[in-house]
Amino acid sequence: MTQQQEIAALKKYVRATNFLATSQIYLKNNVLFKRPLQHGDIKPRLLGHWGTCPGINFVYANVNRLITKHNRKFLYLVGPGHGFPAVQANLFVEGSLSHYYPEIIPYNEDGISDICRKFSAAYGYPSHANPEAPGQILEGGELGYSLSVAWGAVLDNPDLIATVLVGDGESETGPLAASWYANRLVSPENNGAILPIVHINGYKISGPTRMGRMDREELEAEFTGLGYAPIYVDSALEEDVYVQMANAMDKAYAMITEIQRVARSGDDVCKPRWPVILMKTAKGWTGVPEFDGKKLEGNCDSHQVIVNKCATDEGHLTALNDWLDSYKFHELYSMNDKGELIFDEEIQTLIPPAELCCGQQRLSYGGEVVQAVKNPDLTELAYGPDVVRGTRGYSMNKMGEWMRDAFKLNAAERNIRIFSPDETYSNQLQAVFEATDRAWQWPIESWDEDMSRDGRVLELLSENLLFGMMHGYTVTGRHGMFPTYESFSQVIASMADQYCKYVHASQGIHFRKPVPACNVVLSSLLERQDHNGYSHQNPSFLGAMLEKHAEIVSAYLPADANSTLVYTEKAFAGRDKLNILVAGKKELPQWLSLEEARKQAEDGVMIWDFASDENPDVVLAGCGDYATQEAMAALVLVREQLPRVKVRFVSVTELNANGLGSLEFAAKPWLLDDIFTPDKGVVFNYHGYPNTIKKLVFDYKGASRFRIKGYEEEGSTTTPFDMGVRNGTSRYHLVIDMAYKLFQQGVIDETTHSRITTEMLQNLVDHKNYIKANGVDPEYIENWEWKR
Amino acid sequence: MTQQQEIAALKKYVRATNFLATSQIYLKNNVLFKRPLQHGDIKPRLLGHWGTCPGINFVYANVNRLITKHNRKFLYLVGPGHGFPAVQANLFVEGSLSHYYPEIIPYNEDGISDICRKFSAAYGYPSHANPEAPGQILEGGELGYSLSVAWGAVLDNPDLIATVLVGDGESETGPLAASWYANRLVSPENNGAILPIVHINGYKISGPTRMGRMDREELEAEFTGLGYAPIYVDSALEEDVYVQMANAMDKAYAMITEIQRVARSGDDVCKPRWPVILMKTAKGWTGVPEFDGKKLEGNCDSHQVIVNKCATDEGHLTALNDWLDSYKFHELYSMNDKGELIFDEEIQTLIPPAELCCGQQRLSYGGEVVQAVKNPDLTELAYGPDVVRGTRGYSMNKMGEWMRDAFKLNAAERNIRIFSPDETYSNQLQAVFEATDRAWQWPIESWDEDMSRDGRVLELLSENLLFGMMHGYTVTGRHGMFPTYESFSQVIASMADQYCKYVHASQGIHFRKPVPACNVVLSSLLERQDHNGYSHQNPSFLGAMLEKHAEIVSAYLPADANSTLVYTEKAFAGRDKLNILVAGKKELPQWLSLEEARKQAEDGVMIWDFASDENPDVVLAGCGDYATQEAMAALVLVREQLPRVKVRFVSVTELNANGLGSLEFAAKPWLLDDIFTPDKGVVFNYHGYPNTIKKLVFDYKGASRFRIKGYEEEGSTTTPFDMGVRNGTSRYHLVIDMAYKLFQQGVIDETTHSRITTEMLQNLVDHKNYIKANGVDPEYIENWEWKR
Repeated sequence: MTQQQEIAALKKYVRATNFLATSQIYLKNNVLFKRPLQHGDIKPRLLGHWGTCPGINFVYANVNRLITKHNRKFLYLVGPGHGFPAVQANLFVEGSLSHYYPEIIPYNEDGISDICRKFSAAYGYPSHANPEAPGQILEGGELGYSLSVAWGAVLDNPDLIATVLVGDGESETGPLAASWYANRLVSPENNGAILPIVHINGYKISGPTRMGRMDREELEAEFTGLGYAPIYVDSALEEDVYVQMANAMDKAYAMITEIQRVARSGDDVCKPRWPVILMKTAKGWTGVPEFDGKKLEGNCDSHQVIVNKCATDEGHLTALNDWLDSYKFHELYSMNDKGELIFDEEIQTLIPPAELCCGQQRLSYGGEVVQAVKNPDLTELAYGPDVVRGTRGYSMNKMGEWMRDAFKLNAAERNIRIFSPDETYSNQLQAVFEATDRAWQWPIESWDEDMSRDGRVLELLSENLLFGMMHGYTVTGRHGMFPTYESFSQVIASMADQYCKYVHASQGIHFRKPVPACNVVLSSLLERQDHNGYSHQNPSFLGAMLEKHAEIVSAYLPADANSTLVYTEKAFAGRDKLNILVAGKKELPQWLSLEEARKQAEDGVMIWDFASDENPDVVLAGCGDYATQEAMAALVLVREQLPRVKVRFVSVTELNANGLGSLEFAAKPWLLDDIFTPDKGVVFNYHGYPNTIKKLVFDYKGASRFRIKGYEEEGSTTTPFDMGVRNGTSRYHLVIDMAYKLFQQGVIDETTHSRITTEMLQNLVDHKNYIKANGVDPEYIENWEWKR
Repeated sequence: MTQQQEIAALKKYVRATNFLATSQIYLKNNVLFKRPLQHGDIKPRLLGHWGTCPGINFVYANVNRLITKHNRKFLYLVGPGHGFPAVQANLFVEGSLSHYYPEIIPYNEDGISDICRKFSAAYGYPSHANPEAPGQILEGGELGYSLSVAWGAVLDNPDLIATVLVGDGESETGPLAASWYANRLVSPENNGAILPIVHINGYKISGPTRMGRMDREELEAEFTGLGYAPIYVDSALEEDVYVQMANAMDKAYAMITEIQRVARSGDDVCKPRWPVILMKTAKGWTGVPEFDGKKLEGNCDSHQVIVNKCATDEGHLTALNDWLDSYKFHELYSMNDKGELIFDEEIQTLIPPAELCCGQQRLSYGGEVVQAVKNPDLTELAYGPDVVRGTRGYSMNKMGEWMRDAFKLNAAERNIRIFSPDETYSNQLQAVFEATDRAWQWPIESWDEDMSRDGRVLELLSENLLFGMMHGYTVTGRHGMFPTYESFSQVIASMADQYCKYVHASQGIHFRKPVPACNVVLSSLLERQDHNGYSHQNPSFLGAMLEKHAEIVSAYLPADANSTLVYTEKAFAGRDKLNILVAGKKELPQWLSLEEARKQAEDGVMIWDFASDENPDVVLAGCGDYATQEAMAALVLVREQLPRVKVRFVSVTELNANGLGSLEFAAKPWLLDDIFTPDKGVVFNYHGYPNTIKKLVFDYKGASRFRIKGYEEEGSTTTPFDMGVRNGTSRYHLVIDMAYKLFQQGVIDETTHSRITTEMLQNLVDHKNYIKANGVDPEYIENWEWKR
């Protein structure tokens, strides 16, 4: 085809999709516009966002041109929040909707009627990209995540190109800004490429965008500085913008393939300068230029539904009629004798073969392409029988060894990665560097350690970027771990919500299978952020995520290293999950053999027989490794003080929004009577906010017996033990709480209760004085020993 | 002074502060290094972050040079997470510590001993910037917020310059990236300026930074594109870096004053090109260059404590000794006969007059300089007696009118602003544009509305940037509102936590007074994001913030517009608060007169007599405007169905982490018996997640009687009423729940219970069929009328 022919085809294609996007927003009848519009053709409730649609369509057509020209795999991610009618229009034209919904959206007038009638309607099609739409890997709507998710999708998919339409509204967000930095991490040798197109239509809902008022020099300088090669396209320039864009796409494609060619020929590529297209076209392009003296096209006033009184007002209806008429849709198709649409031949040149359509790109269906992780052998990694019952060990180091072995075992598959905003060493996962490196594409100096172009660990100090990349990586069928400082995990709270929403919405879609889990590891826990101070002490993410999504979000709080190993394995085996693993990075007592740890993980709640008496008078529970340590120390103390009192110890290692333990276990709150007894007092020592446990046990009828201890927001720079002293979770506090329960139940008398309380309070005072004087915890805390 | 003299003074000043920073990290004795070090001089537990300290000191000295030269007000914000010993060293030398802590940190050897002994020690001084440190307006540690907070501090402080040291690690975060965009918003005419210095020391904890591996051209291009004028300083260049930096500071200062001069002369300044200094100096500069063959200076290995075995190892101790010796601290001071330190004369030229020291800058003490908001007259704004009891009205529009009047009343004070990431129109606050505009410094087009250089509304699509600016604005004593889409408020979850931590930590500091509240307004609530879809339906921020900080975080969920007005007034009167106002933006039934709304706000919990029967059989509660609407509709239904049953209606409009109602009310859970009866069933209809209410009522002994209804994460594009249908919060569901409670209590028999349940379920089916067929809610839902 000559370029002239290609341009003609593109123009027709975009006329068709612009027409179909418009009709979805406005029409309930006469969807093919076979006759002039009547008021009765208009939907009763007009919803949608016209302004961004023409840009989405323009780019989609241009992507299809590259696909058909090069037979290459592409994804198309849509950054602008809404504009879903445009996505849907393209999915219809390329046949993906009829492929997945043959009965509901056939490739004929009925199909178009369906997407029109149901767009943005109750029990119909949502107003932004969503898993119901074939090929979409991101719940649209919340702005800022398209670019990082695209970067994640192309990792380890060397043939894939992910086009991302980045909105200029979206470009004002922090998460999007930091997403450009991923060019430091992604090697062209073994990964695919992104093709970002920044859509500068100039406006948000009601005002201009930052980029919309920048001149060409400013824009090019910014992206040059970010390390990209900007290609500028502007409908205000003299050359036909269709020609400009086709050339820009060709140029970008050539740059991508050249970078990849060099890298794959074995030459080192430092600072790969990926192309970015800066595309200036008018908001609401081809719609109604102005109305009632108001500028619509090229202004924020075309953001949503324009001429929105067309159901009743003659002038509005005429404007819509002229607008639809301008696309001359009837010239663009015919129908065969079955009534199936046959688009114009030129349009057909731009429809890729089915398997290359963006809506049917298999790599976007993570549940289809997933290869399970080959698991390391836990019997080799676990602490043996000599390291239990209080012997010291390391949870995060063990997790690092598991990941190291996983990297080795799955090296050929290239299907597992670490996304690490807070640095791998700092979270004690450094064993992985025996198997891989940190990826880095800018200069590497002679003194740099564990860095190479193609490492499987991605480190950059942006939680947003790296969580987005993990999202993109896992929904396309691979496996990711996101280890971070507990306190800063809140940075991705909103992204985690949107990820859960994507998964939840996917579960109702017949053509989507469960995708591998996102595994968030919270380490550098508040108890050991004693030295870093108050800003580093924050269990909010855990509490916030346990408020919702019970079936998707599981929190694992292993009490020791063997439990950590078991839960790491479980986390990676998960599908349609956001797992939160909570594990300390410093030396802590170990408790369970590997076999016991596996048993513990069945229900996520277990009575520890080795630490418990039969027919207990009081129950002590621990959830979290530091919380468990203090509870076990309290057991030793209470047995010294009250040798005849019987105590049961319960370890809780799994939580979800429905309750304690696994989802299955939490569904049966009455089982808690077996665990916590039907009537004895319970002192529950928890790692995070007490309110978190309060909401989880609310539905258990025995909950009023619970005294819940946790982080009370009392922190500063101090010692680990003193964190417990400040927040009432220390062993001394737990003894006081148990004694009170025992006194209430009549197991001990007032004198005994008073004696114990006084003694424990004295211990607290002594301790405080000691560390004030010495700056460290006393010896007997540091070297505390478990004994039965 | 000649430049040569200035440079000599700077060098001495930095030698002094580098010495003092180092001694804080290492020494418990011999803090003036009067004799060679011995092992016993070293602290038992070495903590701290040396690597960033020399850069902080270098810049602090240069800021002091500008202050003393120009007698100008400066703040100094420290972006790098740690490096607090450097901040503390400067606060000591300039005398601010001795000013605020004359007994504890006198200006003599004892004072130095104190800051050494207590640095990063339990019950001592934290390891990062914090409110205990004079002049600091940000809890350090969590990276990314320094620049936005600085921008907020200089708003409406036209003489102020806020120097921000931006770390290159911090510069990898999204929030920091978006903070550069504030140059679009801040007019030079009536606001102060920031002077950002990007400290490119090249490394984070264990690896290089993005900027550390960029060349000069890349760096300058990026900042030019961002709209700044970069000034490059690099210790690797031939010219003495002290001379480079002094010149850079002079140049930056001249550029700032020139921009301000032009703007204040009445000329329009479009695209003010503020300076930014890009400063490349080595991480750990002047420390130990290398040790044991490992590169320390200019590498990540100097991030924390280097030669950290100096308490026991001879080689380490010698290295530290040589390092300390290199500063020749003894040459820099003498002592008077009272033992007070007298720093070298040249150093003294760099110590500003007390009131201009960064640690004593009055504008950084918001509690000192605050001027209370002059309140609009609620009797003029409120709906009158004709708009109550179900008549329709608008909450957010009323809030907009309140803000409009507040802008007018406080115009002279210039002490109130709106920080609006999601656009003022879209949250229905547009009445404010009768009083002010949106601020914009890049080109303004003829068709733009409500935009001018100096508007008091700041709009940009970055929640992070705008919340940071509000933080900076309020802690410096002014008043801010941050209206946002409820669903996207999670984006600032972590920033809100850090704000609360700053406030909480401030409350223990004798020289800090309570600062004006941060007021977060959640609008575009999930119930009315029916049309935008699932990504826009998320009450997580509310739930997450109600897990903690009971004394700081108050959530206000006014049931109608008059309540909204009362709570808006209350919110702006708050001190040391993060208030969350939750109000819908569409038409809703109104309930209370202004007087009743004021009464309601006293406890935040009130029995609505006009809707209640005496001696109730069952209690229905509503919390949130939409939730209240459905509850009131359920009341009408249940009275139709069961005329003899007596129902009480309770409105809950305030929540905090301790429980329902105001903080005072929540402290007395037993009062809930008066509200909810001691024994009757309670159906509680809540706006957000049920788990939020579960944790708040856990400690109330009557909580087991509560059936808590709320958002169950079932959303999509639908209608507002259908959101309730999907989540079990519709009027029909509430009737079913009340009937079940009544049946359980024996008030109605099984037949009646069964009849009502069947009828309500049929209503739900009918409704679903209706909207599936018509895409809108049926007439009888839209036009529902309250009646008693």
